Order: sequence, then structure tokens, then C-alpha cells
Amino acid sequence: MMRTRRILGRLAALTAVLAGWAAPAAAQDPLPSWNEGATKQAILTSVKEATTPGRPGFIPAAERIATFDNDGTLWVEQPIYTQLAFALDRVKTLAPRHPEWNTTEPFASLLKGDLSAALAGGEHAILEIIMATHAGMSTAEFEQIVRAWLATARHPRFKRPYTELVYQPMLELLAYLRANGFKTYIVSGGGVEFMRPWTETVYGIPPEQVIGSRIKTSYQMTADGPVLMREAGIDFIDDKTGKPLGINAIIGRRPMAAFGNSDGDRQMLEWVPTDHPRLRMLVHHDDAAREYAYGPKSHIGTFSDSLMAQAEASGWTVISMKHDWQRIFAFESR
Amino acid sequence: MMRTRRILGRLAALTAVLAGWAAPAAAQDPLPSWNEGATKQAILTSVKEATTPGRPGFIPAAERIATFDNDGTLWVEQPIYTQLAFALDRVKTLAPRHPEWNTTEPFASLLKGDLSAALAGGEHAILEIIMATHAGMSTAEFEQIVRAWLATARHPRFKRPYTELVYQPMLELLAYLRANGFKTYIVSGGGVEFMRPWTETVYGIPPEQVIGSRIKTSYQMTADGPVLMREAGIDFIDDKTGKPLGINAIIGRRPMAAFGNSDGDRQMLEWVPTDHPRLRMLVHHDDAAREYAYGPKSHIGTFSDSLMAQAEASGWTVISMKHDWQRIFAFESR
Repeated sequence: MMRTRRILGRLAALTAVLAGWAAPAAAQDPLPSWNEGATKQAILTSVKEATTPGRPGFIPAAERIATFDNDGTLWVEQPIYTQLAFALDRVKTLAPRHPEWNTTEPFASLLKGDLSAALAGGEHAILEIIMATHAGMSTAEFEQIVRAWLATARHPRFKRPYTELVYQPMLELLAYLRANGFKTYIVSGGGVEFMRPWTETVYGIPPEQVIGSRIKTSYQMTADGPVLMREAGIDFIDDKTGKPLGINAIIGRRPMAAFGNSDGDRQMLEWVPTDHPRLRMLVHHDDAAREYAYGPKSHIGTFSDSLMAQAEASGWTVISMKHDWQRIFAFESR
Repeated sequence: MMRTRRILGRLAALTAVLAGWAAPAAAQDPLPSWNEGATKQAILTSVKEATTPGRPGFIPAAERIATFDNDGTLWVEQPIYTQLAFALDRVKTLAPRHPEWNTTEPFASLLKGDLSAALAGGEHAILEIIMATHAGMSTAEFEQIVRAWLATARHPRFKRPYTELVYQPMLELLAYLRANGFKTYIVSGGGVEFMRPWTETVYGIPPEQVIGSRIKTSYQMTADGPVLMREAGIDFIDDKTGKPLGINAIIGRRPMAAFGNSDGDRQMLEWVPTDHPRLRMLVHHDDAAREYAYGPKSHIGTFSDSLMAQAEASGWTVISMKHDWQRIFAFESR
């Protein structure tokens, strides 16, 4: 008995040593949540090229700018954009202060829980909801509102905080690019001040590397010092052609790598110089079991047939969530 | 004779050794072009505080954002802004293509060499000149135009390229702040695409850390790929309240240090949290012999009496070019 125990003990020790021996090799894979295959290989090869002087794909360190869409590229955007979920919750929170909303659209329908009736007013309805919930406070107050909401809000399907619904393979890709000298930026149609409170913790991307849509702001001096007030007007929409325009206005360099997932990202990918085709990638949502499957017919994150055709013709890589990703979320069992 | 030579030779060798001995001590001064005194001491003390954990002035590394105005703060802005000199030269270059300019103001006066008559039309005249010279080409073409102009243009008084008319003490300050973990930004009323082609070489500030005024742009697909066209319209004026608004839109953090020289920088300095009063500084142009002396009455770089009073009341440091700077330009004999 004692002898068996001793042997088992020695075997356990040996196993630990062997595990320790094996660990460095496993740690060397910078993309463990990506399945082996053409997509993973394209990333590894392109980054190797980008960082090897003399290679055709070499990119000087200062020019290694990588831009990432957010909704549907780095985190879940279904069944509705997270920022829209935030706005709808804010309408409910603010409703007692706005009795007139009970009889005014789109708020009346929203408060009755009828989202599609509320959104029947199209862009105008969405703009009304955004302005009612995103304007009229200082930038510092808005940041606190966003933080407080994210701390308690849960995704309707996954029952987890939205900040946990980020794609593990993309977190690995962000870290891998940064380890190779790339400066990683978010370039999203979402509101920049909705993203900045959490992008550093969740993605390792600091506020100054987040580009997004913007509301108008004004500078006001108060007894406690200056504040920036969020005004009821759109300053900039960071979508479609807005993406290269925003990148130019803020970064002033063309990205050398760009990652998106929908028609809104087309021009951003086009704006990457054509000598880096493989670092232009689109996440394709084709995994209804683990996440969602949607494409040309979805109003959120539309991935049209013409975008697919352009990706093919241009040598852009389409990432299949189903086939290329070994796991999608960090909380999944492996 | 031989002996004297040998002794002189030994003395020379000894001098070289002593000079070598003394060099490390001199190299330890990060601000050699600043005279000893309260201003230099304020910088050294504030930076020491900012980087020492536990001190009241400590700033976490990620929050060390320093913003610098450009015209009159980092380089010469007299007798006219460099960008206006560029625009006037462009009018002359483009005139053969615009025969109508000979009879249309402000161009007619400009082409006759009468700047004050041309500018009599005020903001509208300046806008016409800017749009005629800064719009109607791609961003890539504009960059080449700026580079070509800077390579040949000379300042009327100093007879040197404008990129040599940068203040040596400020170059040292930029480098010193960066060595202490600060991210240095330009936040200028000047056009962002007029600055980006040279700020990295001249100031060590990369394009993505340059904030400035912007012209409207549009995205266009050509046979050679996409281009961004510069359109005849103002997108953003990065002056006065525009400075904190631009800083918020682009950086998304409040600066912990800010440096300016005129009324246009007032709100940017206010936007630095008040627990860092000494890292809010204004360059005062009071040295007509070595550079220029101007203040409340100057149309360019106005430093009003009310700004001076606010600096005093708020504990902001006013830098006297005459007294605080041992030399102004790198090309000066010391």
C-alpha cells in the first residue's frame, strides 16, 4: 500500500515535471483559441512578414497601425447592439421624470416593451432615443452612467455582463499584434464615450486609441471648474466612409491591418494599402450554436453578398467563427 | 620646440580627459537651454512629483498626457503664421491657373503684394485664401505640397527653413517629459495636415499625436484605389474652447500638463485638473532681440492682460523667453 502510494506520488511528480516541460511549448502559440488552418496561418505569416526587415510585407514599427471594428468584431452585437440595450434601459430609468413619454413615440412603445413598434420610426426614432438618453449631462457624468450600467446589465441569452461577451480569439489577436509592435485601435460606429470607460480593461486599448461616433459637446465653466456638456446633436458618424475619414482625422496614417465584420467596415478595409491583403479580415457569424449566425439579411451587422464577393476578389480573409475559432468566449469550457 | 609641442600635446590630452570627465554631469541636466531659476525649477519639481508614487502630484503612467500648442509655443509665429505664409506662396504659384484672381479680392491685393488690403476682408478673406490653397486635392497630394514648400521656403527675418525656427528649450522639454513617461501631443489651431508631415522629425511627435483644425474630407474610389479628397469646407476649428473639445474627442482623457502662449490656449490650460497648477505654462514673447516681443496688442498670438491675470490667479507659470531661455534656437551660438 505504502509502496503503491509512493509510486503514485513519484508518478504525480513526474507528470508535473513533464507538464512543466510541455508548458513552454504551449505558451509559444500566441493564438491558442484559433484552430489550425488557413486563417490562423494567414495571421501568423502576415505578422512574421510585417516584422521581418527585407520581406515584401515588412512594415516599419511606427507604421504598424491596426484598426478593429467593435460590435460583432470584438464583442457580441446580437440580438441588439449593446449600446441600444443601454439606451432602452435608460429610457425606463428616466421615464418617471418624463410623463410625456407615455404618449409620445418612440418612447410610448418602448415603455410598453414593443421594440419593433418603437423602431418603426426608423433613423429618426433611434436618434430620438439616443439623444434622450445620451445627451444633457457632462462627459464625466455619462462615464459614470455607463460604468454603473455595465456593472449590473446582463445579456438576455448569455446572462453575463456584456464585457464578458468579448471574443477570446480576438483578444489573443490584439495581444499578439501589440507584442509585434502594432498599435491597436478601435474604429467603431458605436459612441466613443460609451466604449472608452471599459476598453482599456477589457481589450488593453487605452481611451486615446478608441475612435467612434460622437455627440456634439460644449465647454462650460462652472463653480467647480470646467465641464464638457453632451449636447443633443450628432458630431460625427464613424461608419462606412466615416471610418477612413475618422482614421485620417485622428490617426493621420493609413492602417496596415484592419478587422471588421459587416458592410460598415468595407471602406476601412479598402483603406489598408493593397500590399497587405492578408491583414484585412472580416469575422463571419456562422455559428448559431455557440453565438449567432447571420449575414446578408440581418439589420444588425449586415454582411452582404457584395461584401463577400469583394472580400474574395480582394484577397481579404473571411474568418469563420464556426471553423476558425476553437472557442469563442473565455468562459466556455474547453 | 619639440618639447613645447609635446607639452602642448599632453595638455590637450589632459583637457580632453577633463572635458570627458565633466560631460556626464552636464548631460544630467535635461534642460540645458533653460536658465536656472523659478521656471526651470517648477518644471523639474513638477515632473519629479508626477513620477514619484505617493507624492501629491503623482500621475499614473497611463494618464501622463501633455498637450502643446504649436504656433508661438513650439515654433515662431511672427511676422505671420507659417501656414499663412504657405497659403500666400500657394496663391502666387496657382495664379496662372486663375486669371480671375487678378480682379477678385482677396487675391488681387495679395498678388500685388498688399497683404493688409487682402486681409481687410477679415475672416471671410482668410477663409477664401485657405480654401483656394488647401482644398481640391487628395490628402496624399497635399502632404507632398507641404513637404515641397517646407524644403524651399525661408523665414523673412531668419532666412532659414521654418522647421529650424523651433524653440530649443521646448524641444528639450518635450524630450524630458517623454523620458518621464508623458505622451506628448500637439493641440494647435493650425491645420492638422499642415503639421503632420514634419512633426515626427522635428518634435518627435508622431502623426497620431497631432490634433489641429481640419478641413472637410470625402472618400472617393479611383482606378488606383481609394483617396481622401480635401473639400472646400471647415470641419473643425481647434482653437479656444475647441481645444478641450478636440482633446476630449480624440484623446478622451484630460491632459495633466499643457503649454500654450496665447488667448487661444486659455481653455486648454483650464482643462488640466487644478491639482497640477505648475504644469500649466504660457510662453511669453518678450525678447525682440532674439525673437519677437508681442502681447496684448498683437493680432497674432494675442496674450491679453486678462490671460496674464488669470495665469497669476491660477498659479500657471509664465515663461519669459528673455529671462528663462538661455538660447532660443539650436542654430544660435551659445
